[in-house]
Amino acid sequence: MADTRFFSTPKALSLAQIARVAGAELASVADGDYLVEDVAALDVAGERHLSFLDNPKYRDQFTASKAGACIVHPDIAEHAPSGVRLLLSKSPYKSYALAAQAFYPEERPSPSISKSAVVHSEAKIGQNVHIADFVTIGAGVEIGDGVWIESHAAIGGGVVLGEGVRIGNHATISHAVIGKHTRIYPGVRIGQDGFGFAIDPSGFVKVPQLGRVVIGDHVEIGANTTIDRGASGDTVIGSGTWIDNLVQIGHNVKIGRGCILVSQVGVAGSSELGDFVVLAGQVGVAGHLKIGSMAKVAAQSGVTKNIPPKEEWMGYPAMPMKRYLRQSVMLNKMVDKKRNEN
Amino acid sequence: MADTRFFSTPKALSLAQIARVAGAELASVADGDYLVEDVAALDVAGERHLSFLDNPKYRDQFTASKAGACIVHPDIAEHAPSGVRLLLSKSPYKSYALAAQAFYPEERPSPSISKSAVVHSEAKIGQNVHIADFVTIGAGVEIGDGVWIESHAAIGGGVVLGEGVRIGNHATISHAVIGKHTRIYPGVRIGQDGFGFAIDPSGFVKVPQLGRVVIGDHVEIGANTTIDRGASGDTVIGSGTWIDNLVQIGHNVKIGRGCILVSQVGVAGSSELGDFVVLAGQVGVAGHLKIGSMAKVAAQSGVTKNIPPKEEWMGYPAMPMKRYLRQSVMLNKMVDKKRNEN
Amino acid sequence: MADTRFFSTPKALSLAQIARVAGAELASVADGDYLVEDVAALDVAGERHLSFLDNPKYRDQFTASKAGACIVHPDIAEHAPSGVRLLLSKSPYKSYALAAQAFYPEERPSPSISKSAVVHSEAKIGQNVHIADFVTIGAGVEIGDGVWIESHAAIGGGVVLGEGVRIGNHATISHAVIGKHTRIYPGVRIGQDGFGFAIDPSGFVKVPQLGRVVIGDHVEIGANTTIDRGASGDTVIGSGTWIDNLVQIGHNVKIGRGCILVSQVGVAGSSELGDFVVLAGQVGVAGHLKIGSMAKVAAQSGVTKNIPPKEEWMGYPAMPMKRYLRQSVMLNKMVDKKRNEN
Repeated sequence: MADTRFFSTPKALSLAQIARVAGAELASVADGDYLVEDVAALDVAGERHLSFLDNPKYRDQFTASKAGACIVHPDIAEHAPSGVRLLLSKSPYKSYALAAQAFYPEERPSPSISKSAVVHSEAKIGQNVHIADFVTIGAGVEIGDGVWIESHAAIGGGVVLGEGVRIGNHATISHAVIGKHTRIYPGVRIGQDGFGFAIDPSGFVKVPQLGRVVIGDHVEIGANTTIDRGASGDTVIGSGTWIDNLVQIGHNVKIGRGCILVSQVGVAGSSELGDFVVLAGQVGVAGHLKIGSMAKVAAQSGVTKNIPPKEEWMGYPAMPMKRYLRQSVMLNKMVDKKRNEN
Repeated sequence: MADTRFFSTPKALSLAQIARVAGAELASVADGDYLVEDVAALDVAGERHLSFLDNPKYRDQFTASKAGACIVHPDIAEHAPSGVRLLLSKSPYKSYALAAQAFYPEERPSPSISKSAVVHSEAKIGQNVHIADFVTIGAGVEIGDGVWIESHAAIGGGVVLGEGVRIGNHATISHAVIGKHTRIYPGVRIGQDGFGFAIDPSGFVKVPQLGRVVIGDHVEIGANTTIDRGASGDTVIGSGTWIDNLVQIGHNVKIGRGCILVSQVGVAGSSELGDFVVLAGQVGVAGHLKIGSMAKVAAQSGVTKNIPPKEEWMGYPAMPMKRYLRQSVMLNKMVDKKRNEN
Repeated sequence: MADTRFFSTPKALSLAQIARVAGAELASVADGDYLVEDVAALDVAGERHLSFLDNPKYRDQFTASKAGACIVHPDIAEHAPSGVRLLLSKSPYKSYALAAQAFYPEERPSPSISKSAVVHSEAKIGQNVHIADFVTIGAGVEIGDGVWIESHAAIGGGVVLGEGVRIGNHATISHAVIGKHTRIYPGVRIGQDGFGFAIDPSGFVKVPQLGRVVIGDHVEIGANTTIDRGASGDTVIGSGTWIDNLVQIGHNVKIGRGCILVSQVGVAGSSELGDFVVLAGQVGVAGHLKIGSMAKVAAQSGVTKNIPPKEEWMGYPAMPMKRYLRQSVMLNKMVDKKRNEN
């Protein structure tokens, strides 16, 4: 179904092959040889497509689907329309992701360094590296094997890019050490001076920003996101963390492993997030705070206090979600009462 | 009045000419031959300038203005200072826009392809195209007649740019089909992978993003805005929609015709906006929601539910505006009462 | 302590030298000859490091510090651990900033114009200018002495850059006049058309944007920030103002001297800020408002009314902070009461 202008046509796969890569189980072993040619959403999938149901919101689409095969949770199997071959998985979305990767493996350009790129003679370039047009690579840069740098990116002096890293178009990277298989999207700014100055009646005095940005392995950093380098010590992004578009990370922020920062989040200087923290869209975190591991903060919340591990917070200023919801219910009742009195 | 370093000096126009292009009516036909040389704001306009009054906030500036001519609503004509020639229009701002366009028509560079641009041999380039320095154009790109691509833009393989499209400096476009006369501002990121992954204890599993970004005609997309491509199916921006700077549009979002998305708005994945929807600045819309045609959402609101057509909503979380205002009034009264009690 | 891949090793300085540049006083004159080699944070500083204590939150780190010397407020001197040489200053953070600048003076590349840059023959280039790879400079641009333009920046026709200005990688500057020693960070967009159109049932009518962006001296503008040019008249940023990353400044906004706009702030068209105004992170200011000098607005607030000088406001919509806090306290008490009743 994917537009062939942008994606290669996938190779057909048998349901047995898919079950294997996707960590799913065939509801009927007899379906193992059935070939599917592509993945597709429930409402548009046809006989030779593989689809999936994860969000219960779309269950009506499932019962009406014409998909040849579908990945579902075992509990939902009984609601399947007749004729749909089922792959059972307790994590249908994860299984779909793995199946879709099998149909559409990441395509990397063949290794080469564009003639138009400007690569400093003192940069160390690994094996099988692709450097596209108009890229600049500064002195002392270290580029690992299999790195892919898209056009117009600027890699400042001394930067380290681990094996398999991909840097998007127009990204600016300086003062940074980036781990393996991390992906930086287009227009990201990493390593510039943080917002550091001493306030003085005669004009602000700039504080030299002497740290770095240290990013782990398998991190994703979304388009036009900005990550300032540490003022003293480093700004740190832990392995496996995913950061969406247009996010701001201030100087000396420490983010643990496996965190999710949704679009337009802002984390002010020196705040620390544990592991597996989730900040939903447009959340703001004030400076010098600690957010415990596995804590979750609802969209648009404004965090002004430390949040203990595993808690869910919400509001402006943010508070434990239960408290916030109680407050909302109370206000709603009061407004309704007031209205009835009038 | 415009700085001639940046704008060409306009040609003088008679008020009769202006009335025609601006869809306005001369209050006194005798003024038709009066020449004005430029447009200017009410407070700085002189004898040979055309000004306008639209926002009633600036009415004092109108009565004190020294402008040679002014576009106003017929109802306001009686408040005109003597000596100001009046052009009457029921849409003074629209009439001003049309008059200003007559003084300052868009200036496009002459057609040419910079020697420093890297254009793939398999790209199809239309007539009268301008491609500036350091632009990259990938394989299979289709560029319509009269397209203008500013310096440092990166147009990925297979992208389609309709007739008259203008792409700003440093923009990154991939996996996209863009309609006629649409304008993309500098630093925009279109078509990158959306924020799609399955959560798994052993690390997030990336979901291949197999859709596109499809943008209609006469769309404007502001500087540093990010629009992710669909995960399955497309992200769609309808014709005539205006999107401001630093806006985030998630994967599979569908936006109708003639919508207005003010700066720093974020729309999460798979949400759908009807036609002529207005989202004011910094609004956040959660994923998988529907906002009906002609609905309006006040600045900074956080939308967590579907909004029916034509309704005005506000708040965090967003609710119908009347309800929100009732709540505000109630809280204010309570605070005042409390204060008096103490 | 700074990573030598990114920073030059500083020269050792005596405490007497440091006291002089930092405007601080030696607690013991006998320490004047003591040499320190670098600056470092309290918790990692060693015998030959200079540290500082400003935020009382870190006082425990101070009493446990192994720093050779430390800048502190005179009132805190008595809490010093033995063996730490003290530099006394009533503004310890400012003194630290000045000392750190002495260890790490800004390093500028030697003057040169890259062969890969495209500089228009009618541009005026001052003395000691550095223009990096893939920069474009349009017709009539004026570049002052000592200007540094980093790679991939695009400077549009007619732009004026004052003495000592630094333009970051991938920045886009058009229709702008920029004062002395101002720094523009990577990915900033200055001078594009503002979000100006007249609403009309047959489609929006674009209003030509005929103004400029005028920026003062010693201004800092953070990464990926966007500043639209005036519609009629100019967008103005006063001298000494610091703007953080991902900020949006609408057309015709006027910002005074010495203001601080933290990350992700948005200021809508035609609003005016006096001098020394502070807008904390993610604040939104609606259009056509006035915020008085020295006013402060708390993070995430939504400003919908004029704010008098020196006032502190907060909330959504924003109100005087005292009123907002009273409201918060009241709500909290009510929720607690409700809970106890149940």
